Amino acid sequence: MNRSIIRYILASVLEFEALFLLLPCIIAIIYKEESFFAFFIVAVICFGLGWLGKLKKPNMEQFYAREGFVAVSLSWIVLSIMGALPFTLSGEIPSYVDALFETISGFTTTGSSVLSDIEALSHSALFWRSFTHWIGGMGVLVFILTILPLAGGYNMYLMRAESTGANVSKFVPRVKESARILYKIYLAITIIVVICLLIAGMPLFDSLLLAFGTVGTGGFGILNDSVASYSVAVQAILTIFMIACGINFNVYYLLLDKKPKEALKCEEMRWYLLIIAASTAIITFQVRGDFGSIFEAIHHVLFQVASIISSTGFGTVDFDKWPALSRSVLVLIMFIGACAGSTGGGMKVSRIVVLCKTIKKELSYIIHPRIIKGIRFEGSVVAKETLKSIQVYLTTVVVVFVISVMLISIENYDLVTNFTAVSTTLNNIGPGLSRVGPTCNFGFFSDFSKIVLMIDMLIGRLELFPMLVLIAPSTWRRNG
Amino acid sequence: MNRSIIRYILASVLEFEALFLLLPCIIAIIYKEESFFAFFIVAVICFGLGWLGKLKKPNMEQFYAREGFVAVSLSWIVLSIMGALPFTLSGEIPSYVDALFETISGFTTTGSSVLSDIEALSHSALFWRSFTHWIGGMGVLVFILTILPLAGGYNMYLMRAESTGANVSKFVPRVKESARILYKIYLAITIIVVICLLIAGMPLFDSLLLAFGTVGTGGFGILNDSVASYSVAVQAILTIFMIACGINFNVYYLLLDKKPKEALKCEEMRWYLLIIAASTAIITFQVRGDFGSIFEAIHHVLFQVASIISSTGFGTVDFDKWPALSRSVLVLIMFIGACAGSTGGGMKVSRIVVLCKTIKKELSYIIHPRIIKGIRFEGSVVAKETLKSIQVYLTTVVVVFVISVMLISIENYDLVTNFTAVSTTLNNIGPGLSRVGPTCNFGFFSDFSKIVLMIDMLIGRLELFPMLVLIAPSTWRRNG
Repeated sequence: MNRSIIRYILASVLEFEALFLLLPCIIAIIYKEESFFAFFIVAVICFGLGWLGKLKKPNMEQFYAREGFVAVSLSWIVLSIMGALPFTLSGEIPSYVDALFETISGFTTTGSSVLSDIEALSHSALFWRSFTHWIGGMGVLVFILTILPLAGGYNMYLMRAESTGANVSKFVPRVKESARILYKIYLAITIIVVICLLIAGMPLFDSLLLAFGTVGTGGFGILNDSVASYSVAVQAILTIFMIACGINFNVYYLLLDKKPKEALKCEEMRWYLLIIAASTAIITFQVRGDFGSIFEAIHHVLFQVASIISSTGFGTVDFDKWPALSRSVLVLIMFIGACAGSTGGGMKVSRIVVLCKTIKKELSYIIHPRIIKGIRFEGSVVAKETLKSIQVYLTTVVVVFVISVMLISIENYDLVTNFTAVSTTLNNIGPGLSRVGPTCNFGFFSDFSKIVLMIDMLIGRLELFPMLVLIAPSTWRRNG
Repeated sequence: MNRSIIRYILASVLEFEALFLLLPCIIAIIYKEESFFAFFIVAVICFGLGWLGKLKKPNMEQFYAREGFVAVSLSWIVLSIMGALPFTLSGEIPSYVDALFETISGFTTTGSSVLSDIEALSHSALFWRSFTHWIGGMGVLVFILTILPLAGGYNMYLMRAESTGANVSKFVPRVKESARILYKIYLAITIIVVICLLIAGMPLFDSLLLAFGTVGTGGFGILNDSVASYSVAVQAILTIFMIACGINFNVYYLLLDKKPKEALKCEEMRWYLLIIAASTAIITFQVRGDFGSIFEAIHHVLFQVASIISSTGFGTVDFDKWPALSRSVLVLIMFIGACAGSTGGGMKVSRIVVLCKTIKKELSYIIHPRIIKGIRFEGSVVAKETLKSIQVYLTTVVVVFVISVMLISIENYDLVTNFTAVSTTLNNIGPGLSRVGPTCNFGFFSDFSKIVLMIDMLIGRLELFPMLVLIAPSTWRRNG
């Protein structure tokens, strides 16, 4: 294990966090809030630690997948540990475990909260809380990579460990260049959302924070009722952009590149939109009686489906009161998640589609053993290695899920609470059902359960293996 | 599709069912019950249909995996359709859908019941109900194969479609011979159970029926409270034999073959016993306060764990009242199930162990990419094909599970009921939690949900693919 380069990367992460923390400082100055000191002190600490960590030049040679995985998961942990400090220092979230939960929920774009009164937070704290979504949305290390003058083969290892979805992106070879393009798209969408919300009559501060939560597919709101009290126009804008941010960003790249035909051909996007349409149809059919008109029903159901499948987690209605099938559909799309290469979470549509195709292939192999066909996705045959890694991914999700549910169950809440609390954190959604439903929060869990759920959020955001490599004893053996 | 040989096989199955049905006829004569006529008429019909189906000689040449899968799944369906008739003809289960549910639950060794008053059944109906477990336990077609004078390569295809677990058995090449040995072991264990129960003071009729339910790992009891009112000795005997019947029968073969060392080396058995021990320890720790002494607690918990993991489904206590973690452990071991090559259901311990080893391998590959190790199980490296098929198996279980839960959810019962009703039928256990808990039954479900659960029982017993091949449209295309 090359510890010096990991130290160096963590130091860079801390320096960037110092910069990020200056933004809530500015907000605190504008609104004349005392929380300024909390953010400023932590910014100084981050900068100091970063400076210390960079004093000694690292050994740049030995950098492989293992180092990439460890660097990425440690970066997210360090980022969260420091990012949670201002909440506790300013006294706004007295328990540090709670503050850490909120911060990890922010950076991983989960949006599960331990707070019952969000509106009591200061402007600067609200800003930082939502801004973590925006930072987390596109990945921290990839962002740093696009700016830092570091060269070498390890970019790829870092990118691979942090980016979402199976390795189907054509971008990977030109890491830095393509990451820059993706960041420009990300920034552009954010600005568009802010403008749309301003036009819909929302104040600038609220628009900014809501845009962070939407484009990062996070889901932290700024009101206690999430987004239920906003106008229909605002909710419609959010629906459109939640769906949009769950689509593979390659599609937007192709559109910018004036290749609309190729963009529309994206198989994953088609399945994603089809799943949204089917889920909305089923649920609307079941809950149409609860609303004044069929349009109102479609409006709220589509909002909720978009919010869950894109892993955002905003709510306009209490879907925990919906019928069993509707709730089951929501839990299912929690696991399906958004497209690979988007800011959304979950297992990703591409993985699910490929998994379903393996079943079809197995059946057709039994029925017609002489016809050997490969599994096709996005127009080409899926490589055996990719197939294997998707299968292992599913297995690992199941095992992590089962272990987490068991650990949470020790507290003896009902099974639906335990099941959906893990579903929603592991898939980076936000709300679950029963005691963690859309009108509730995660504050009632013990610190032990909160730590389990925090680890699940990180495991989910980093797509399992970076965190598991970090935990595996053999990573840290001397002779390793 | 070679339809003539499938017709011929189905005809043989019907003839054998006619023979099997003579046993409840004898019971009816002994106890002077009117239900004699119902069983006798159906036996005659089965014999007649079988005779008709065998009038024309089949084309023996074209027989492949597809034909094997279709023959096996159709056999189980035909067996159940005819086997359910006596219950309705005699008026003991008036609804034919209910009778079919009970019969499929019997043949698939599930043990879920739609009856609220089991004790009201006649002796002959009780006998037939439990006897279906015993028939289903070791597979119908393999049994016929051992007796019928049919030769040819298709034995293997039939055996492969009907037997449980991944294809690790060394028996496969000598199908007929080894099937005979397994049947002798099966019969021997049944006789031992009967003798033990007789010694414990149980009447012969009760001992026989309980032995069918235990050795077939079915779970139909003959009292309304399952086995709660029996003596501690009887419950202990059942515990031992439930565990024993969940072990790979190869182990007993090796013991008979005077190779005790090899038998004890069986890795799957060791994991199976370890899982039983761990689950019992966790649950006992949680529920120890509910019982008079720690020994009583261990007795009941071990009974329940053995009953669930072996997929039998007997109950001595209402485990639906246990704490969340204990209930979650029970649901987990429902899915883990027994050993391959046993009479038990579930996903099988061998598959679970291999799946967990793939995760370990993936991690060690990331950490030490230069060291390439195969996955070892039972002392040798698992073939890539086997690995792939286990992965596809998991994927298929998940997909079948999700679709079934969605279909059941239409009825709008609580999520735990829907989730565990599917878990318990797909894994051939018997009881679930909440509304399908150990003190409840499946009678309240609509006919639609009952049909879904029946299909799940068949899919579970035949290990997914035979039933899916039967349903797949491309199996039945003209040019196929």
